[in-house]
Amino acid sequence: MRKILITNDDGFNSKGIEALATLMENFGKVTVVAPLEAQSGMSTALSIGKPLRFGKIESKSGRELFVCSGTPADCVKMSMNKIFTESPPSLLVSGVNHGSNTSVAALYSGTLGAAAEGTIYGIPSIAFSLSNFDQEADFSAVIHWGRAIIENFIEHPPLPGVYLNVNFPSLSKEEIKGVRFAHQGKGRWINEFEERVDPYGYDYYWMRGEFFNLEPSSRESDHNLIEGNYISIVPHTIDTTSREEKKRLNALWKFNTL
Amino acid sequence: MRKILITNDDGFNSKGIEALATLMENFGKVTVVAPLEAQSGMSTALSIGKPLRFGKIESKSGRELFVCSGTPADCVKMSMNKIFTESPPSLLVSGVNHGSNTSVAALYSGTLGAAAEGTIYGIPSIAFSLSNFDQEADFSAVIHWGRAIIENFIEHPPLPGVYLNVNFPSLSKEEIKGVRFAHQGKGRWINEFEERVDPYGYDYYWMRGEFFNLEPSSRESDHNLIEGNYISIVPHTIDTTSREEKKRLNALWKFNTL
Repeated sequence: MRKILITNDDGFNSKGIEALATLMENFGKVTVVAPLEAQSGMSTALSIGKPLRFGKIESKSGRELFVCSGTPADCVKMSMNKIFTESPPSLLVSGVNHGSNTSVAALYSGTLGAAAEGTIYGIPSIAFSLSNFDQEADFSAVIHWGRAIIENFIEHPPLPGVYLNVNFPSLSKEEIKGVRFAHQGKGRWINEFEERVDPYGYDYYWMRGEFFNLEPSSRESDHNLIEGNYISIVPHTIDTTSREEKKRLNALWKFNTL
Repeated sequence: MRKILITNDDGFNSKGIEALATLMENFGKVTVVAPLEAQSGMSTALSIGKPLRFGKIESKSGRELFVCSGTPADCVKMSMNKIFTESPPSLLVSGVNHGSNTSVAALYSGTLGAAAEGTIYGIPSIAFSLSNFDQEADFSAVIHWGRAIIENFIEHPPLPGVYLNVNFPSLSKEEIKGVRFAHQGKGRWINEFEERVDPYGYDYYWMRGEFFNLEPSSRESDHNLIEGNYISIVPHTIDTTSREEKKRLNALWKFNTL
């Protein structure tokens, strides 16, 4: 039977991971290994110099459930070192994230960090995110469309070194126009901090910010596609070398004087 | 006068950032914005849902020094939102990291996370790492060779969207054979956790692990180059889309049934 590892960055108790586990039980034996607490924005961060807790807990659904005190990437490492010691899982599925992970959010996302970590281990890995931050968001369209996405993923997985980033618009299954492959859009955040003063008179800052889209609206980036009511899929590579820049700079840089 | 932003992931008080600031003072006005505490392995992580502290402190060198309670990427965001509000710095230099950041370590490194964040803002960004974890490591060869690297970086910076990852072998300036452009090598960690029992009888885990090189020794990856006594420079891209996989999978995946 196909072994499936499920993780996320919103924590083991989120509605999104429950929806994902329900979907994935159609495809094999699910093991959930999720962070104890919310780990949004943790990218591929690891807990170095900080001890980790890890253990099995009882789940309401009767599903195999482990929690880890660290990051999403820690969860994957812990799974590989402590659970899947005989043979790796056939698939890693991360999410469903509460909130989209398009454009540069791909660099910050813990949901994608877990998929990148799975890819380092050679496990076909895919991440699902829904463009809705609500804790009580409706995941029914994700479950509906996700089934066909997972069928394709199993039949034609990405090549080694590549993982998939799937973003769903926050719409009903009927309102979604379809699924499109895309590239990571250009963009950045602006107005990133809200400044406050604590009761003792000292400043502190909350990160927030607004997304500023730098991709022309005519181009089918991930961000533009979900804005246009499509599901977007971006294949991301863990080898982030720019071969073009390697060649170009190699021809220009000189070290004669040394 | 050229404005230079310096950050790192080992914290404001490390020997590596002091060496880097000394080097960069040859090229312009240095502002150091560094984490209050060690942030190794933090990748491009951001502090979401956790308040940040940020402020100017006095430095022994008389240099402009700010500290931030968050990650390296937080330091860059804070710099851009609170210090460089009129115009951005001309350069961002991150490091010098105590320890190399080659191969998949590029995905975990906070030193590189800061350079990626600078790149999102459109600032030419470069990261330096020395293959020596010692707090008292000798950075004199980095300062020597780094000067010519920064001269080239200023004259021929990477194109927008690309940052540079420079790794130095832990050798004297005379022992270093030269500088080579490289690709990010293949590899992963093994034996990643050390299990211990706390005084109350519960298990906990320290992350450690050994690097397992998966790159053939004949290939000039970053890891192989520093093992061969060269300085390696990898241009990394913040757009991690695999265009080849986008095209290949787009031709294979079917959604007929929806």
